[in-house]
Amino acid sequence: MSNAEQAHWTDDAELDAIPPLRDEDDRLNRDWIDQIVDLIAMKDENEVARYMAPLHASDVGDVLEAISPADRFELISLLGELFDYSALTEVDDAVRLELMELLPNTDIARGVQELDSDDAVYILEDIQGEDREEILDALPTFERLALKRSLDFPEETAGRRMQTEFIAIPPFWTVGQTIDYMREADDLPDDFHQIYVVDPSYNLLGTLALDRMLRAKRPAVIKDIMNSTIIEVEAEEDQEEAARVFERYDLVEVAVVDETRRLVGVLTVDDIVDVIQEEAGEDIKRLAGVGNEEISGNVWNAVRSRLTWLGVNLVTAILASLVIGMFDATIQQMVALAVLMPIVASMGGNAGTQTMTVAVRALSTRELDSYNVRRLITREFLVGVVNGVVFAIVIGLVASIWFASPLLGLVIGAAMVINMIAAGLSGILIPLALDKLKIDPAIASSAFVTTVTDVVGFMAFLYIAALAFNLF
Amino acid sequence: MSNAEQAHWTDDAELDAIPPLRDEDDRLNRDWIDQIVDLIAMKDENEVARYMAPLHASDVGDVLEAISPADRFELISLLGELFDYSALTEVDDAVRLELMELLPNTDIARGVQELDSDDAVYILEDIQGEDREEILDALPTFERLALKRSLDFPEETAGRRMQTEFIAIPPFWTVGQTIDYMREADDLPDDFHQIYVVDPSYNLLGTLALDRMLRAKRPAVIKDIMNSTIIEVEAEEDQEEAARVFERYDLVEVAVVDETRRLVGVLTVDDIVDVIQEEAGEDIKRLAGVGNEEISGNVWNAVRSRLTWLGVNLVTAILASLVIGMFDATIQQMVALAVLMPIVASMGGNAGTQTMTVAVRALSTRELDSYNVRRLITREFLVGVVNGVVFAIVIGLVASIWFASPLLGLVIGAAMVINMIAAGLSGILIPLALDKLKIDPAIASSAFVTTVTDVVGFMAFLYIAALAFNLF
Repeated sequence: MSNAEQAHWTDDAELDAIPPLRDEDDRLNRDWIDQIVDLIAMKDENEVARYMAPLHASDVGDVLEAISPADRFELISLLGELFDYSALTEVDDAVRLELMELLPNTDIARGVQELDSDDAVYILEDIQGEDREEILDALPTFERLALKRSLDFPEETAGRRMQTEFIAIPPFWTVGQTIDYMREADDLPDDFHQIYVVDPSYNLLGTLALDRMLRAKRPAVIKDIMNSTIIEVEAEEDQEEAARVFERYDLVEVAVVDETRRLVGVLTVDDIVDVIQEEAGEDIKRLAGVGNEEISGNVWNAVRSRLTWLGVNLVTAILASLVIGMFDATIQQMVALAVLMPIVASMGGNAGTQTMTVAVRALSTRELDSYNVRRLITREFLVGVVNGVVFAIVIGLVASIWFASPLLGLVIGAAMVINMIAAGLSGILIPLALDKLKIDPAIASSAFVTTVTDVVGFMAFLYIAALAFNLF
Repeated sequence: MSNAEQAHWTDDAELDAIPPLRDEDDRLNRDWIDQIVDLIAMKDENEVARYMAPLHASDVGDVLEAISPADRFELISLLGELFDYSALTEVDDAVRLELMELLPNTDIARGVQELDSDDAVYILEDIQGEDREEILDALPTFERLALKRSLDFPEETAGRRMQTEFIAIPPFWTVGQTIDYMREADDLPDDFHQIYVVDPSYNLLGTLALDRMLRAKRPAVIKDIMNSTIIEVEAEEDQEEAARVFERYDLVEVAVVDETRRLVGVLTVDDIVDVIQEEAGEDIKRLAGVGNEEISGNVWNAVRSRLTWLGVNLVTAILASLVIGMFDATIQQMVALAVLMPIVASMGGNAGTQTMTVAVRALSTRELDSYNVRRLITREFLVGVVNGVVFAIVIGLVASIWFASPLLGLVIGAAMVINMIAAGLSGILIPLALDKLKIDPAIASSAFVTTVTDVVGFMAFLYIAALAFNLF
């Protein structure tokens, strides 16, 4: 877009006012979206630019997600060089992948070049094969090599998430020299919060937060004012581990080093905030047996992400049915048992899920360790006893009255206590065992716990009933 | 501790080496903990200090959580003035409250005074009544007033989490003046990442990131280089809303303003990281019907946090039993129905939970809005159809062979398809309805969804069976 055109839409006082992008609930404003969709349909380049220009990249991302796939591509085309590719780091994977397919590789290369390396990697990592090569080849050598190095680290590691732009200085510089260097250098990162002090082979000697530097006088020597407690993250380390380091030490930036301890990049807290959200979301979904699906995924993505878990659940449900089948003669003589048996299993399943959720969350935030594990097992056993007794009394009374049989009330009460204890113990022991076996407890616990509570629930209830009423 | 003593433990080369605090899995090292427990038992002040001094506050918090309640109090007493009270912001609420009970109010007042106001508020907010007054009275006037103001904001708001230490300057200052001011002022916050530009009545005019200031020349005027896109959070706003602002705009600090838009504090990203973890944990626990419990809570806390949900579940389980009870004559004639019926209900419950989890998470991260909701409802319906058909075929074959009755296979298959569709639709529609009614979908969805899938599951299966086999 030429300057003349730009002047046109910024200076013209007669232009209509743009409605606010978000309503008071912080959701996108329907008017705004309707208007941009109309403008896209009319291919009104100037008005589209006037609407989009003030937006932050993440707002642009939200707008892209709110409009149709065809409009997304059209909007980016209309914006041309005004489109900031970092908006693509703010949209769902499905939306980004689809756009990447549509956009010409040369445009992507141009857009990616303007980004900090962490954002560039985020966009490129999902592009495979020839397309990725073509885009990388269109980049200047320095950027290409930096991106290739990041892309060589495994997914979800610190190396993948790091930004390769950072400021590294020798320890013998003064504050004055450093400030002068920063005033003159033109390839500085977009935002930075600390400076890295390194030896000639780029080994980290210390860090210097900007506020410390600003408070020091110009002649002060860096090595005297730097923080020499070194906190660093290895490039091969999992991003979740890196996030824990941030949380533990309240960091805004951390150094990333390679296997020879050379400084290769920095992780910034905004990426870590995304990692924390992502990992928390993964835990929630895994507990419910949902793969890493997004709401923008299509039917097929969703079916696939859920089939495995439903398949596992079918096996455990059939297992529970086999238990019931062992007592078919008993049930035939007393249909009330068939009516009541799901209650025992369902209460156990819920109690087990409660304990399991607490345990899985504590394992994933590393709150659960060998110092509190014994206490926690005892606690969950006792919680099972207490809740078991409470609900045994309630359901015992209900069943006695409903079927006019105090003995049936006693039977279901006893089964309830047994199953609630089984629920508490399996809810804590199964996640612990999976964690010891290095299996993610969030993924697998639920299936095992509900198998235990179903089998124990049906078995205890039907067996005690058969004994009590002599119905073998 | 005197300097002489300090010299003793830092200079003595014959002292035993301290083992590493953490093992390679990042968990506390048992040797380290055993040794500190022994040192506490021996009341060896110097050695305790030598072990504890190098630790970051959050490591101190982890150590406190790993040792017994009696040892915790003894450890803090042995450390005396060396104990950094910010460690208390890193422990579970239960541990902190118990310590607050034991520690003298004068010690707490002294410890709290050294902290940034956000940490001080975090510690004081759980202390009630006289104790809180006593501690506040022991503080210097300025600190007391700042803390009181923060404590006046409701819990879990930006005002509660904010830090009242920040740097505010007028727009007409130069970079040089600002740097000189920072070099001389001695009441600066511990860490800061940007400077706030305000008018005489403390209305925010803009912000200046430290890296921008460092790159500017001394004579540059602040108002020319400041960022005048104002992003601010209201003090009364929920901390979760504030966290969303951080995520959206990739911030490290944000201004907090009161109802007259005066700057009253700043929120920093380290607190926001904690908020995000906390809120994600709350979502996970609420979905499983667990209150806001911690693993350090006792049996009674845990029982209480889970009773409500189990009570609700009991009601829904009885409801399902009533449905089964309507078909007792049918079951009596064909016990196979009792054996198979839990499978249909259980598969529906799981499929419903999957959909519900995706919906709840998307609502809580604000990914779900009026632009994708219709598409999502259609998707979940179709997922229900596809998964329903897939598992109808599998369970239909299993049931046909198990009970040598192809008709029974057809019956259970039909019931499965119906229940999977009910699961998909209730899994999305119930959270949406609750959200519209301003009820947290994470808390209440699960009970409603499983009621639907239980009732529909048992009803569809038994009714179709009764029809097919003419068993009324």
